[in-house]
Amino acid sequence: MSMSIDRRSFLAAGATAATAAVLPAAFGQGESGGGRPVRIGLIGCGRRGSSLASVLLRLPDVRVTALSDTNPANLQAAAGLVTAGGQPEPARYGDDPEAWRRLLERDDVDAVVIATPWDLHAPMAVAAMKAGKYAAVEVPCALSLEECRALVDTHEATGVPCMMLENWSFRRDNLAVLNMIRKGLLGEMVHCHCAHSHDCIDHWFFDPQGNDRWAARFLIEHNRDQYPTHALGPVLSWLDINVGDACATIASTATASRGINAYFARKFGPDHPGARRKYAQGDIVTSVIRTQRGRTIVVNYDMQLPRPYDNRWMVQGTLGLYREDPSTVYVVDRSPKYHAWEPFAPYQKEFDHVWWREHGAAAGAAGHGGTDFLELKTFVDAVRARTQTPIDVYDSVTMSMVIPLSERSIAAGGVPVECPDFTGGRWKTRRPTFALEA
Amino acid sequence: MSMSIDRRSFLAAGATAATAAVLPAAFGQGESGGGRPVRIGLIGCGRRGSSLASVLLRLPDVRVTALSDTNPANLQAAAGLVTAGGQPEPARYGDDPEAWRRLLERDDVDAVVIATPWDLHAPMAVAAMKAGKYAAVEVPCALSLEECRALVDTHEATGVPCMMLENWSFRRDNLAVLNMIRKGLLGEMVHCHCAHSHDCIDHWFFDPQGNDRWAARFLIEHNRDQYPTHALGPVLSWLDINVGDACATIASTATASRGINAYFARKFGPDHPGARRKYAQGDIVTSVIRTQRGRTIVVNYDMQLPRPYDNRWMVQGTLGLYREDPSTVYVVDRSPKYHAWEPFAPYQKEFDHVWWREHGAAAGAAGHGGTDFLELKTFVDAVRARTQTPIDVYDSVTMSMVIPLSERSIAAGGVPVECPDFTGGRWKTRRPTFALEA
Repeated sequence: MSMSIDRRSFLAAGATAATAAVLPAAFGQGESGGGRPVRIGLIGCGRRGSSLASVLLRLPDVRVTALSDTNPANLQAAAGLVTAGGQPEPARYGDDPEAWRRLLERDDVDAVVIATPWDLHAPMAVAAMKAGKYAAVEVPCALSLEECRALVDTHEATGVPCMMLENWSFRRDNLAVLNMIRKGLLGEMVHCHCAHSHDCIDHWFFDPQGNDRWAARFLIEHNRDQYPTHALGPVLSWLDINVGDACATIASTATASRGINAYFARKFGPDHPGARRKYAQGDIVTSVIRTQRGRTIVVNYDMQLPRPYDNRWMVQGTLGLYREDPSTVYVVDRSPKYHAWEPFAPYQKEFDHVWWREHGAAAGAAGHGGTDFLELKTFVDAVRARTQTPIDVYDSVTMSMVIPLSERSIAAGGVPVECPDFTGGRWKTRRPTFALEA
Repeated sequence: MSMSIDRRSFLAAGATAATAAVLPAAFGQGESGGGRPVRIGLIGCGRRGSSLASVLLRLPDVRVTALSDTNPANLQAAAGLVTAGGQPEPARYGDDPEAWRRLLERDDVDAVVIATPWDLHAPMAVAAMKAGKYAAVEVPCALSLEECRALVDTHEATGVPCMMLENWSFRRDNLAVLNMIRKGLLGEMVHCHCAHSHDCIDHWFFDPQGNDRWAARFLIEHNRDQYPTHALGPVLSWLDINVGDACATIASTATASRGINAYFARKFGPDHPGARRKYAQGDIVTSVIRTQRGRTIVVNYDMQLPRPYDNRWMVQGTLGLYREDPSTVYVVDRSPKYHAWEPFAPYQKEFDHVWWREHGAAAGAAGHGGTDFLELKTFVDAVRARTQTPIDVYDSVTMSMVIPLSERSIAAGGVPVECPDFTGGRWKTRRPTFALEA
């Protein structure tokens, strides 16, 4: 059965009409859709990739048909997951660093899920789109403005969607807040605060023995917000970024770098190489984004000082505000006591998103509080229906562009730098599509 | 009895030796000290001034000997407070706008407390120092860099102390956090967040009927952090600003102005002049201060959107952090659970400041949770002992300079602007004096 793709459904969400003619043959020749399962190729089968595979295997009518990883043990373990899930033995690509490209040539792959080190995300997603495969790519989807541009250009040239897997956009609380905002409870949006406060020094940048992991070099070589997407995910939807508003400028300031050296000295002694090495990365980065419509977003990077996990979300409008922790809200003419917080819980119940009402039970058992389930389910649904993904390429690069832009601003002493408009001005007329309930 | 002033005690806290020769005659001729009461002249007897008078009247060995206000009713009411407190009828100066200058000529005034509109603070404090009177001046102590400079120059020329009455520096929680920091629990300081989130639209900038009060014009004419001192008060002590570190640059970004118009339209209808008038002031201002030693301080102005009061204090170091709300702390190798908050309450108890242990009962019954009591008690103690005030002129202007500097940065599109160093480089060698327990 030959499937034709409904390209209008992609284009409606932003691709230019000028690009509509370019459609790779492979993209029209897939076999998904209708009653057939969506077939996924997984590139990157490490800790994150295998976790995503477990979620994919829980989704109905989804097959994991091919795997790629340069580490044979990862590949073996992931293949075991697939067969243990009752599915046929997946094809494996692991014999050389470019093996993943051959996975993209397969006819029985409708979409790829990419969970590799950061610097591989954009090249793999670009190649996937060029091969006509829907691309779901882990955060961040790009590390440079050139990579952002390549993702957008490739999407617009091919019409193939690309979605960054920003799971915090799918959190139950964040989606209820989105519903509140869309129903007008908080009035006109004015300001947001968000953060990725997550001490990753002792297990993620470095292993527990103090050895460098693959991302350690980013701390040595760069001073920037290394990981802004979890902070920004829900904020984009709260403020209609790219669908009514757009990021205009960003100004970033970094502290000195103290935390990493202090960690190594404390844990391994002052003579440990990690305690003496110079890191470019400051401990806390504060970025202030100003939007075209005059809203502001404060984003904090905070991943190398000892502390509990925190996203510090706060969104404020002309009629009230929500803050994540303590989970409270204030709404003019509704909150019972003047200028006093009330618990968010009743609002969570009243404004609970349909995704969670319908799939919360299934989602809850999956990774990251069920958000991995929802992001992959909605991605797979889009692949099956040949429609735009819930998070599109514009939102994906908007979240990721903070990495290179913050580096540029910090290097320039904190001056605001202009944000590229990847929508080419269409943010003024595009309408929200993410998580619409109607 | 002729009192000689111990000028070394002032000079030790920062005044230059070169200025030591200039000592106004009046300052050496006071009658305070020894067993005699400290005699206060109060300039500004409105709501805030009379509240401060009530606190002063609770302090032992303090007399309120003179009052000044251009409003006869205020003057009458404050005089009634004084006599009701069992003290002699105070002298009154209210017949013309310059009457307060004659109050400064009195021999029975050792110090003045200034609680007038913002734009009068600096001229009055300067005149007080020139008259040899200790100056306690309400927040902010200055609105321009020229006023900041005048306060510092006058202090250095006269040797007379000037203290801004920043009461949040004296909060019980903030002082316990200061003790924790000084004992090293949080390691090397890295970052702070602070805010003045206080919806003052319906009672302070405007009266409840929607009429302009005296500060309304600041919202019409300026776009800046109008009121940074309550946010910054404790932060200065936490980060050793002016005593080991100093503010280097500040970059400020304002949102559009939506809240004031929305408030008037909602409460008085869309045709009310307040709903149509253009306000220069953005709703939320985010300022990022970078210090000479590479720390950062984020300061949010947030006084015209509907919301509960909040200061959003957070202070973070290489070994842990404190946040105000929810009142929690995390300390490496001490907090029982890895990466989990614990309640601040036990730390409050363990690190409670001596001021609160000794005076908490008396302070608690006074204004603003007892902080008004402590700030005035420690000010009066300094007057009595002829020593430097707990908050000196350098800290006072450092908190206030954010007003003009934020305006300059916002007007320039958010570029970082250089912070003047009012200590003339002495921040490198000056040592902390505020709230030392030893």
